Amino acid sequence: MRLVGEPELEDIAVGAAILGTGGGGDPYIGKLLAQEAVRRHGPVEVVSVDELADDDFVVPSAMMGAPTVMVEKLPRGTEAIKAFKALGDYMGREPTHTTSIEAGGLNSTTPFVTAAQLGIPLVDADGMGRAFPEIQMIIATMHGISATPMTLADEKGNSAVIDTIDNSWTERLARTLTVDFGATSMIALYPMTGEQLKSGAFVPGTIGLAEELGRLVRETRAAHGDPVGAVVERLGARRLFAGKIVDIARRTEAGWAKAEARIDGTGDDAGSTLVLQTQNEHLVAIRDGEVVCSVPDLIIVVDAESGLPITTEELRYGFRVVVIGAPCIPDWRTEEGLKIVGPRYFGYDIDFVPVEERFPA
Amino acid sequence: MRLVGEPELEDIAVGAAILGTGGGGDPYIGKLLAQEAVRRHGPVEVVSVDELADDDFVVPSAMMGAPTVMVEKLPRGTEAIKAFKALGDYMGREPTHTTSIEAGGLNSTTPFVTAAQLGIPLVDADGMGRAFPEIQMIIATMHGISATPMTLADEKGNSAVIDTIDNSWTERLARTLTVDFGATSMIALYPMTGEQLKSGAFVPGTIGLAEELGRLVRETRAAHGDPVGAVVERLGARRLFAGKIVDIARRTEAGWAKAEARIDGTGDDAGSTLVLQTQNEHLVAIRDGEVVCSVPDLIIVVDAESGLPITTEELRYGFRVVVIGAPCIPDWRTEEGLKIVGPRYFGYDIDFVPVEERFPA
Repeated sequence: MRLVGEPELEDIAVGAAILGTGGGGDPYIGKLLAQEAVRRHGPVEVVSVDELADDDFVVPSAMMGAPTVMVEKLPRGTEAIKAFKALGDYMGREPTHTTSIEAGGLNSTTPFVTAAQLGIPLVDADGMGRAFPEIQMIIATMHGISATPMTLADEKGNSAVIDTIDNSWTERLARTLTVDFGATSMIALYPMTGEQLKSGAFVPGTIGLAEELGRLVRETRAAHGDPVGAVVERLGARRLFAGKIVDIARRTEAGWAKAEARIDGTGDDAGSTLVLQTQNEHLVAIRDGEVVCSVPDLIIVVDAESGLPITTEELRYGFRVVVIGAPCIPDWRTEEGLKIVGPRYFGYDIDFVPVEERFPA
Repeated sequence: MRLVGEPELEDIAVGAAILGTGGGGDPYIGKLLAQEAVRRHGPVEVVSVDELADDDFVVPSAMMGAPTVMVEKLPRGTEAIKAFKALGDYMGREPTHTTSIEAGGLNSTTPFVTAAQLGIPLVDADGMGRAFPEIQMIIATMHGISATPMTLADEKGNSAVIDTIDNSWTERLARTLTVDFGATSMIALYPMTGEQLKSGAFVPGTIGLAEELGRLVRETRAAHGDPVGAVVERLGARRLFAGKIVDIARRTEAGWAKAEARIDGTGDDAGSTLVLQTQNEHLVAIRDGEVVCSVPDLIIVVDAESGLPITTEELRYGFRVVVIGAPCIPDWRTEEGLKIVGPRYFGYDIDFVPVEERFPA
């Protein structure tokens, strides 16, 4: 067990936005909300998956919807707690812990708000080892764990509990409810026992990894080093492309933030163009018409100078960026994993090739 | 208290379809399901609103969605019970009674299935005195009674509980869930105490009225009388138009069955045309370009010979029909009532004029 307060949240927000591959929400808003919560209620106890008892009852707390909208429509702060408590009420058992559904700017810090306000510990883990746009895209799905009962709450006071036959149905119903709620909602889902978490239903240590990445960027910058290189090395990743953003087209569709960004190469990449296609998270990177990295591997856009991650909503014309490709957790590269989050699921007619194979070290 | 079995259900289905103004679902399917349930579990105890104790707990049981789809997608029979029980579980109290949310072919008989299967009494009442297409269109809304908690279940095994800030939000969320469920769902909503029902939150005696209307049609036909005239007289209604259906256009949209039917006049109405516009229920009747009857008054289409009601789904080219306009319950004609179900709510730029004023006796 360790305590996480304001300074640690600073690093976690940065590192989670790196793992968030452009999605998972605005790390700045997420950080502010979590820091405000720990200022008011004290630091949050973070426990590792190993520290859980078999009969602990863990409920992830998260935001769902288009982060583009979340930037303008700040959560009231009470709806996350409302969704979380409603799930406990529905199941007739009070959750002992919360955790993070995905690594992302907002969804890595949202559970800290819940943990701080309710005075419960947070489990150092997440469901994906990165961020993904849909609810069933979580390794717990491969372990046969149901996303439901799931609760949703909006900032107006509406709420819902859904109970579905599989996790794809959960995604479908939760998505339309979220669109009705005004494109975002606060959610609680994937209620799990400590035993399930320990048996591999979630990715252990993601919060710690996020904090480590954030600290690495901060310390390397302070030492006038190469923060981008440090992140690439820590993640066993590849530097895919460096350039300047010359075009960005966005649309918010069915509760998703879809985008396509065009980057003109600089330095070694001069004369080439990289296109990023995004559905909340970056799905594929296409260099001069050829896919160079795809889901489930991580496509990470960082500022060329500072190494700080840039979310999809922040991408602007003229930004100088480096695009990094990092290997996802091994679970996603299995046949079953690729069925859930491989390029074909997202409508791309290509096979998944690990980024390390495309770019031998 | 009285017992309702197979023969009474025969009359109730016909009478409810008359009050259903074209909507409320197929009376034949509703009747078969209810008759099967009473054959298996015995007749249903029907109690009047006056017989309720203040602390009785009444939960209406109904079908939601496009009746057009329901005709092809028969309910499995278990999902009504599932939605009903889920509401009791959620509220931590077992319902003592069920009742009917609207007068309509299916929704007047659906609660008999629930009552028979669970062995609980059914309250002789409904929420509208007719059928309407949206959830908040119920006089309980004017009494400040919440539609939620509301439960929904589909035939695949998915379910949801929603809790909303007002009854229009209930309609919105329940409608999109129902569309996701495949355009129909079984629902339980408007949980009420006996005290609330007795204070006028529901229309007392609607099941009894439906049975009386059904019997009237049956007996008048048997006596070679004028069943259409008998219905008109019993409802204090007006015979608006007689003719032959020459065109019917349908579309299923956002979980609703929308339709427009064109009727060429015969007899006294020869040379005129009546157009019916429908959203599950008939909204307006337009004769030669002029509105002659509108919501909330009842527009009822019956077979010209038999007096039997014809639902929107059954309307076919060539049918010889009589269109009847009947006064709605007084609650709907108040300023507050017209805000909820008046012609302007449905997008018609006209004032409501009672059918008795348009057609003095």
